[in-house]
Amino acid sequence: MADNFADRVVAAVLAKKSQVCVGLDPRLKALPPFLVEKHRLSGSASREAIAGCFADFTAAIIDAVAPAAVAVKLQLACFEQYGPPGLGAFEEISRQAAAAGLLVIADAKRGDIGISAGAYSAAFIGRPEGLEDAKSGASVDALTVNPLFGTDGMEPFLADCAAYGKGIFILVKTSNPGSAELQDLALEAGGLFHEAVAVRVKEWGEGLIGVQGYSSAGAVVGATHAGPLRRLRQQLPRAIFLLPGYGAQGAAAADVAAAFDERGLGALVTASRSIIYAGSDEDYAVRAGEAARQMRDELWQAGTGAP
Amino acid sequence: MADNFADRVVAAVLAKKSQVCVGLDPRLKALPPFLVEKHRLSGSASREAIAGCFADFTAAIIDAVAPAAVAVKLQLACFEQYGPPGLGAFEEISRQAAAAGLLVIADAKRGDIGISAGAYSAAFIGRPEGLEDAKSGASVDALTVNPLFGTDGMEPFLADCAAYGKGIFILVKTSNPGSAELQDLALEAGGLFHEAVAVRVKEWGEGLIGVQGYSSAGAVVGATHAGPLRRLRQQLPRAIFLLPGYGAQGAAAADVAAAFDERGLGALVTASRSIIYAGSDEDYAVRAGEAARQMRDELWQAGTGAP
Repeated sequence: MADNFADRVVAAVLAKKSQVCVGLDPRLKALPPFLVEKHRLSGSASREAIAGCFADFTAAIIDAVAPAAVAVKLQLACFEQYGPPGLGAFEEISRQAAAAGLLVIADAKRGDIGISAGAYSAAFIGRPEGLEDAKSGASVDALTVNPLFGTDGMEPFLADCAAYGKGIFILVKTSNPGSAELQDLALEAGGLFHEAVAVRVKEWGEGLIGVQGYSSAGAVVGATHAGPLRRLRQQLPRAIFLLPGYGAQGAAAADVAAAFDERGLGALVTASRSIIYAGSDEDYAVRAGEAARQMRDELWQAGTGAP
Repeated sequence: MADNFADRVVAAVLAKKSQVCVGLDPRLKALPPFLVEKHRLSGSASREAIAGCFADFTAAIIDAVAPAAVAVKLQLACFEQYGPPGLGAFEEISRQAAAAGLLVIADAKRGDIGISAGAYSAAFIGRPEGLEDAKSGASVDALTVNPLFGTDGMEPFLADCAAYGKGIFILVKTSNPGSAELQDLALEAGGLFHEAVAVRVKEWGEGLIGVQGYSSAGAVVGATHAGPLRRLRQQLPRAIFLLPGYGAQGAAAADVAAAFDERGLGALVTASRSIIYAGSDEDYAVRAGEAARQMRDELWQAGTGAP
């Protein structure tokens, strides 16, 4: 029986005194120019060349941020657009991050029904049919999941979390401006739509609570929404929050403080652009490491009151 | 400027007198035993071998159903769980289906915000950065999309639909039993959550209406829900419905009749298991072709009143 994912998060946060999750979202147009040149990506490049450059770019960042971060979050969309070579780079990067002692979150926002939900779960946190004894290509600890389908769409993911010590982060309130349109609709029975999602998240997570009191079924809550963040923290005391929106999207340490308990636990805060593009020259990884350390210190102070 | 996707659907439906969309959802455990043996997949197989078998399995089905079907719908989850080789099989199968004159729907249920939404759109219906002049590996006409993120999450998909003559099918009411939990929540302002989604689908589709009166932003509506299907048809007169749930999931031709206009237009009906697994022997493709023809005839009669 693998260790509970939530317990693994707690142990990592306490060991590193860090709640930092670095978003690895490589974009061709944002890469350091010297790397674009090295991989000959100007003009029209092959998918293999772009994927190789992504792996090269992130390898140095992973090593640089590993001491200050507890997790990395890989945005699947960035890789998927380059087909099989892109997906191969995702797998390679996930293994590198795991080898560097980082928890790996696949930010894929998958969701479906029945057999298809089971196949998505197998792809990231379970075991694909026919490969029971073989290693999957990626090393993933947790997956972001879309709750729209309801309980039967969530069950395969929950079962794999229990079986393999994995986690999910369920979308409750996303960080974008348009999230209000549907997620904040007021319900006849009271409350907002995303609060009704949170009611389900609480139920779904009950069977996955570890010895530290947190559940392996967590919640994605935009760090950009201070009010909802406080209310959801009350509603979901045992969910680990994954908080996007820090840094480039505008949220600061004080905005996310409400997500932490008195030990500084209960949330991982993600930042991507402000870390991985902190530098654009050959020292980009050094700059990323510095940015991750600074973020760690700001958050730890805000989250625990430690000086 | 590429032809409007909705116009292409209308032309295909009228030419083939068919509203059939065949779901290509290969599962190792459901494949004809002779194919499993041919590809030596018993016990623990490689991802390459399983992906090769999927491509072999579907190639014969595509040829057999092409005369009676207008589209195929490829379930990404089935392929994604086998990593880069699986995604390669998805691309190969999509190209085969397109070459056989079928519209190709990638049933990926993708959705995200900002740059990530743009990357998902690029992956399936747009142009990935750096590959502007190169062919993408897959041949996809339309993509299923999750609306939870709101307008800003949808915009990249809508822009690519307009630029490249592609389509999206937005999840409005899924076919599973658990869909009621969140999608049917009653709103304070009246109506149900999925009806509020439909309000947005109507707005999002307004800029994509073709000369035949239908929009390239369609809706996924479970064929298993007769009441919602009728109400959504009224609410979304210009959306092409993609109706899962036919056959193995329990819906019959009479259940979906309300989705069609008087010319038999306005909806594609998907069936997977009842067609691709109609036979389990060496004649499985012949059986799939027969099942697709039977489904076409049943639907066309129900949809147009034609004898």
